[in-house]
Amino acid sequence: MATPIEFWFDFSSPFGYLASTRIEALAAKYGRDTVWRPFLLGAVYKINGVVPTPNVPLKGDYARIDILRSGRFYGIPIVVPSNFPIGSVTAARAFYWADAHDAARAKQLAAALYKAYFVDDLDIANAENVVKVAVQCGFDAAAVSAGLADAAVKQRTKAEVDNAIAKSVFGSPYVIIDGEPFWGMDRLDQAEKWLAGGPF
Amino acid sequence: MATPIEFWFDFSSPFGYLASTRIEALAAKYGRDTVWRPFLLGAVYKINGVVPTPNVPLKGDYARIDILRSGRFYGIPIVVPSNFPIGSVTAARAFYWADAHDAARAKQLAAALYKAYFVDDLDIANAENVVKVAVQCGFDAAAVSAGLADAAVKQRTKAEVDNAIAKSVFGSPYVIIDGEPFWGMDRLDQAEKWLAGGPF
Repeated sequence: MATPIEFWFDFSSPFGYLASTRIEALAAKYGRDTVWRPFLLGAVYKINGVVPTPNVPLKGDYARIDILRSGRFYGIPIVVPSNFPIGSVTAARAFYWADAHDAARAKQLAAALYKAYFVDDLDIANAENVVKVAVQCGFDAAAVSAGLADAAVKQRTKAEVDNAIAKSVFGSPYVIIDGEPFWGMDRLDQAEKWLAGGPF
Repeated sequence: MATPIEFWFDFSSPFGYLASTRIEALAAKYGRDTVWRPFLLGAVYKINGVVPTPNVPLKGDYARIDILRSGRFYGIPIVVPSNFPIGSVTAARAFYWADAHDAARAKQLAAALYKAYFVDDLDIANAENVVKVAVQCGFDAAAVSAGLADAAVKQRTKAEVDNAIAKSVFGSPYVIIDGEPFWGMDRLDQAEKWLAGGPF
């Protein structure tokens, strides 16, 4: 079987959310597995000296237009959350806690967290809200809460952020196929060409 | 007739070049005119505190991969020039000098300057090279040289950069249709949906 598709994303990234709704179908169409890897854009931005897009003077207004129009263009529901952007370390830790037990259910949790934030406007920087979403996915509230405070989970999350930096993952979504990087929801078309016909 | 499509670009922008090879056909398909407006990304970056993409630590290597792969994806010849990125004020002044005489020929000059830089790897930060390209487009060498030094041409160029900033044009290419902004070669698909069916 071909190597799995690496799907790197930040839970605060609207285009990461849009891509998350398509990546499984895209992979399945070409007989690929996926590996989901949330990371923290803030840590990468610090290295690059970059300001989050919504906070860049001229870019911020455009970002809001582009996020909502892109959702309509692709036919994917999306809102600009009331609290945006957010720190996403809690959501990332919930994912890696779940991932240690069951990678498939961790993906479902990630999708549910993204939907909660970008469709239902639930602030997933808030740990109580993260636990609430996890419970809706069938996880145990006390177990998730304990997981969020677990040193091993924190360490795993930090290690994956370091891993992202080591792989030069500087944006979200960031898809890696056979070592080839594709940055952005708007590069899934190039990713699909690669999956369909190989390197080009 | 519908309002013309505003096509804003920096002569140092590879995706501006890619879009420049498509914008006329796209406009014609939907019965639109175009207005070409080179500006200076450096001036906008200064306001936004942004570093040119090729100079961002993790992003620079990706940019080179993405530029070349995007050329292959769209079927448009492109190289990463030996001297990249460059200051593009001289090329912009040549354009606005030509534009004061003949807007259609100014577009041809812009296309030729882009091709010289991104296909033939000619450094268009160099005034002699800019004149050479203009001569190949049928302009008079002495007239172009005088135009590059003309205070009115310098003033027009500066005014258009200010105009870009006033319109929040923060990247290249930046297309405005009926007041709606589309940033990036990868938003021409959304621009086309807008042209075909109106606001969405």
